[in-house]
Amino acid sequence: MPQTNRQVRLAARPSGLPRRADFEFTSEAVPDPGPGEFVVAISHLSVDPAMRGWMSPRPSYMPPVEIGAVMRAGGIGRVIASEHPGFAVGEHVYGTFGVQEYATSDGRGVIKVDTSLAEPPVYLGALGMTGLTAYFALLDTGQAKEGDTVVVSGAAGAVGSVAGQIAKIKGCRVIGIAGGPEKCRVVTEEFGFDAAIDYRLPGLRKTLRELAPDGVDVYFDNVGGEILDDVLTCIARGARIIICGAISQYNENEVRGPANYMMLLVARASMTGMLVFDYFDRYPEAMSELAEWYRAGRLVAHETVVRGSVEDFPETLLMLFEGANTGKLVLALNGG
Amino acid sequence: MPQTNRQVRLAARPSGLPRRADFEFTSEAVPDPGPGEFVVAISHLSVDPAMRGWMSPRPSYMPPVEIGAVMRAGGIGRVIASEHPGFAVGEHVYGTFGVQEYATSDGRGVIKVDTSLAEPPVYLGALGMTGLTAYFALLDTGQAKEGDTVVVSGAAGAVGSVAGQIAKIKGCRVIGIAGGPEKCRVVTEEFGFDAAIDYRLPGLRKTLRELAPDGVDVYFDNVGGEILDDVLTCIARGARIIICGAISQYNENEVRGPANYMMLLVARASMTGMLVFDYFDRYPEAMSELAEWYRAGRLVAHETVVRGSVEDFPETLLMLFEGANTGKLVLALNGG
Repeated sequence: MPQTNRQVRLAARPSGLPRRADFEFTSEAVPDPGPGEFVVAISHLSVDPAMRGWMSPRPSYMPPVEIGAVMRAGGIGRVIASEHPGFAVGEHVYGTFGVQEYATSDGRGVIKVDTSLAEPPVYLGALGMTGLTAYFALLDTGQAKEGDTVVVSGAAGAVGSVAGQIAKIKGCRVIGIAGGPEKCRVVTEEFGFDAAIDYRLPGLRKTLRELAPDGVDVYFDNVGGEILDDVLTCIARGARIIICGAISQYNENEVRGPANYMMLLVARASMTGMLVFDYFDRYPEAMSELAEWYRAGRLVAHETVVRGSVEDFPETLLMLFEGANTGKLVLALNGG
Repeated sequence: MPQTNRQVRLAARPSGLPRRADFEFTSEAVPDPGPGEFVVAISHLSVDPAMRGWMSPRPSYMPPVEIGAVMRAGGIGRVIASEHPGFAVGEHVYGTFGVQEYATSDGRGVIKVDTSLAEPPVYLGALGMTGLTAYFALLDTGQAKEGDTVVVSGAAGAVGSVAGQIAKIKGCRVIGIAGGPEKCRVVTEEFGFDAAIDYRLPGLRKTLRELAPDGVDVYFDNVGGEILDDVLTCIARGARIIICGAISQYNENEVRGPANYMMLLVARASMTGMLVFDYFDRYPEAMSELAEWYRAGRLVAHETVVRGSVEDFPETLLMLFEGANTGKLVLALNGG
């Protein structure tokens, strides 16, 4: 057993972008597992835009991370000690282990992952909560179906890249919105979207209207802000807008609401929020479909893996808001 | 046959509140009906917030009223001359006749009204497009059902007052939001809502949270703006927000989008726009239910009737934005 567990705790609630000073770095002994417990050596941490929300004091779909608590994070690791009958040493598991090197668990909310099918980071991305989010948001909330024109923002990001690929598999025409020419290239060439729009160039509305002359049937929104307003002007009758995230607004003190929301009336359209946790009962069904697409090469899993230690967490988190990652952003620890 | 038809035409597209100078007042001869046509003497004009949208150049669910054209309006009148086999002199009809004293029609989009059941203004309100809008928005778009907590803004207004009464009939708990103590009194005492909140008083969110401690299941929004943002903070899991109108924003050059729209994600809620015209096939079913409630005294029809001439149209329209009306605002012409 290792001796020391390095941890990242929330020290202060950020205003605007999180800073290194909003975290504190602590160490404590790695405890032996008690009866019914096991200890996980975390190899990969999921770094997500939603983390910014968990740091804020506002009550949301989850309670805020308390000041002084280990920062909440999903992670993958290997069981290194176990007094739990269901988890054996050497098994790879996913759980909300937090930003630390080792976690003790009683197994609740922990699932085993099959590293013979895919590397651990994939289970944080396309075959993890990210993929499940894309799957249920697109197919259940958005009711995307063959022939629909689907627009995905944050198209080069973790959820967006999977959402667009699922839409393609389902026979939709898929337009991605991403920042910069390189991301747009990845969106079409690697993820197979029909088209990509660089939102940093002027004329997003005009370009979108040209690419979707009959209007947008499903808009999968990960970004909010001005792009949401632009897409609202191009929605088709009966369009479904999926509110999955709003990364452009998470660090703003004043959120920009969609000024063009009355297009919902004009187009008899809907805007619906979703959270993947509501689909817990259907995870197995979705996971087996995602895994099958992955195995068949129809679903590309893409991660940006930062190799380092838990102390690199603050700067890794900032990469999300700088648009520095493509696909799932993962912090690999312990040489993972 | 009368000689002269006085008309109100759109002269200019307003910026902000419509002004008298945005209209021109013309007269022309009342034509004899051609074959298959009839002439209606208009007795009552429907004065609606949506008119402000029709005056704007923005394409919407209907084309804008063209500059120089007779201002669009629904109205009730009596057939005074007919060469149409389906419409006899003396019958009362509803149609989009425009802001004028007489209209010639070929019968398309015109429906007959039974003045033995209710006075003509009622067919512009509770038993007209207003009532149908409330009916389909609440029951179809909003899926309101027994036991739901329903909040209605513009609760003393034309659509809101009917929506809240239908919600009561369906077994919901209904909270109205209206401006000023007198309207709040009417909302509870005349329309039978369970409670009313005066939005002009401070603390709307707090009051709403006290009145709806388990959250708002259905929010029927007629006003938009700050009230929409306030209600968003109080929605229940799976809430349905009906976007029926946004009267607070119609005269604004910059629309205020709902900054709290991410509550849709937190609450897994939806915001959906509706237009009554989509339910054309179901008008008869809804009309017969509304008429039955009206006949049984379960649905109170309330109108603010301004008696005057078409020349009073601009000032009557402004009453809507001043909150001067309770229930349906009607301009009665020709001594109607």
